[in-house]
Amino acid sequence: MHRCSRHEPDMDAEFHLDVALIHHPVVNRHGEIIGSAVTNLDLHDIARASKTFGIGSYWVVTPYPLQQELATGIVGHWTEGYGGVADSDRAAALSLIKIRASLAEVIDEMTRRHDGRRPKVVATSAASSGEKRISFSALRQEIVGEKTPVLLLFGTAWGLAPEALELADAMLPPIVGPGAYNHLSVRSAASIMLDRLLGRREEADQH
Amino acid sequence: MHRCSRHEPDMDAEFHLDVALIHHPVVNRHGEIIGSAVTNLDLHDIARASKTFGIGSYWVVTPYPLQQELATGIVGHWTEGYGGVADSDRAAALSLIKIRASLAEVIDEMTRRHDGRRPKVVATSAASSGEKRISFSALRQEIVGEKTPVLLLFGTAWGLAPEALELADAMLPPIVGPGAYNHLSVRSAASIMLDRLLGRREEADQH
Repeated sequence: MHRCSRHEPDMDAEFHLDVALIHHPVVNRHGEIIGSAVTNLDLHDIARASKTFGIGSYWVVTPYPLQQELATGIVGHWTEGYGGVADSDRAAALSLIKIRASLAEVIDEMTRRHDGRRPKVVATSAASSGEKRISFSALRQEIVGEKTPVLLLFGTAWGLAPEALELADAMLPPIVGPGAYNHLSVRSAASIMLDRLLGRREEADQH
Repeated sequence: MHRCSRHEPDMDAEFHLDVALIHHPVVNRHGEIIGSAVTNLDLHDIARASKTFGIGSYWVVTPYPLQQELATGIVGHWTEGYGGVADSDRAAALSLIKIRASLAEVIDEMTRRHDGRRPKVVATSAASSGEKRISFSALRQEIVGEKTPVLLLFGTAWGLAPEALELADAMLPPIVGPGAYNHLSVRSAASIMLDRLLGRREEADQH
């Protein structure tokens, strides 16, 4: 078998990638700015992928107090309640979740945690990524090779609103297959992107 | 930027990859053989990923008539009912779903469709993949380069039961990140594996 000859940086050394799932501001199918509802499976699936790929924190961003309560309740059930006793793997994943009211708050908190160094904020989108575009391999190198603190943004509903995109320093290209269709769930897109950035390809491609 | 020098087969020519989500026979956390329930989001998320990556059919396998009815009802809503009118992208994805009672039935039907040629049946597992192991790059080459008809199996619950694994000709390695944790949802695992097999890496890695 041929193998990709790309240099693989040391993945065992510590890196600093956080993920944020934005429920506001996002857009609806008409491009209008809305706030979306927190869903149970967005928390579970992205937390499990985050734990698999060694993410530091999985930030769940919603400005709505009742939605924050809902998310807190789900996380608490699995980390402190009966769920954590019944399924410790699930507890390990859900314990990565931190609920915050705004993206600005998340960026501030990450900045403080990294001694005043603002993380590189990278947006994702199903649309073309324009001027700020960064490739998966370039971002992988920054995260794993250079240990740059990075915050990766995912939008719910029809994606991140312009005011969220403006906070981003860079943008990953959309996930595409052989055709033009790319209506992935945010759960699928997040899983694929984390695998592209942090999956152990060298093992996966060995016999 | 360095780029992976791997030869990319022609992805625009027709290939034949189907996906099957098995609800029986699978195992529970104790390794006992069970049948799991069909869930709405397994249908939606894996159908959307299947459509994105150009899958032929997404087979939903359950022997239980009531579960078949439930799945048929969900698919019908989105392909023939109000959902299809409201969201044609969702209709395009869900129309890939075919509901069947057993894995053997799916293999027979694929075999008939390919003029008597049995598809290569490839299992997936979160556990180590043993003797039948095939790498992602080798399977990608078989699907996209050699146009081998392939059926990719995903198990619900705690994974495919031994009798389902016995029908497989090969097995993909589990998805792992930097650590040992690999408790992905089947939705995440399916999305990642389809991306590894069919995602357009060359575009993703260009600036």
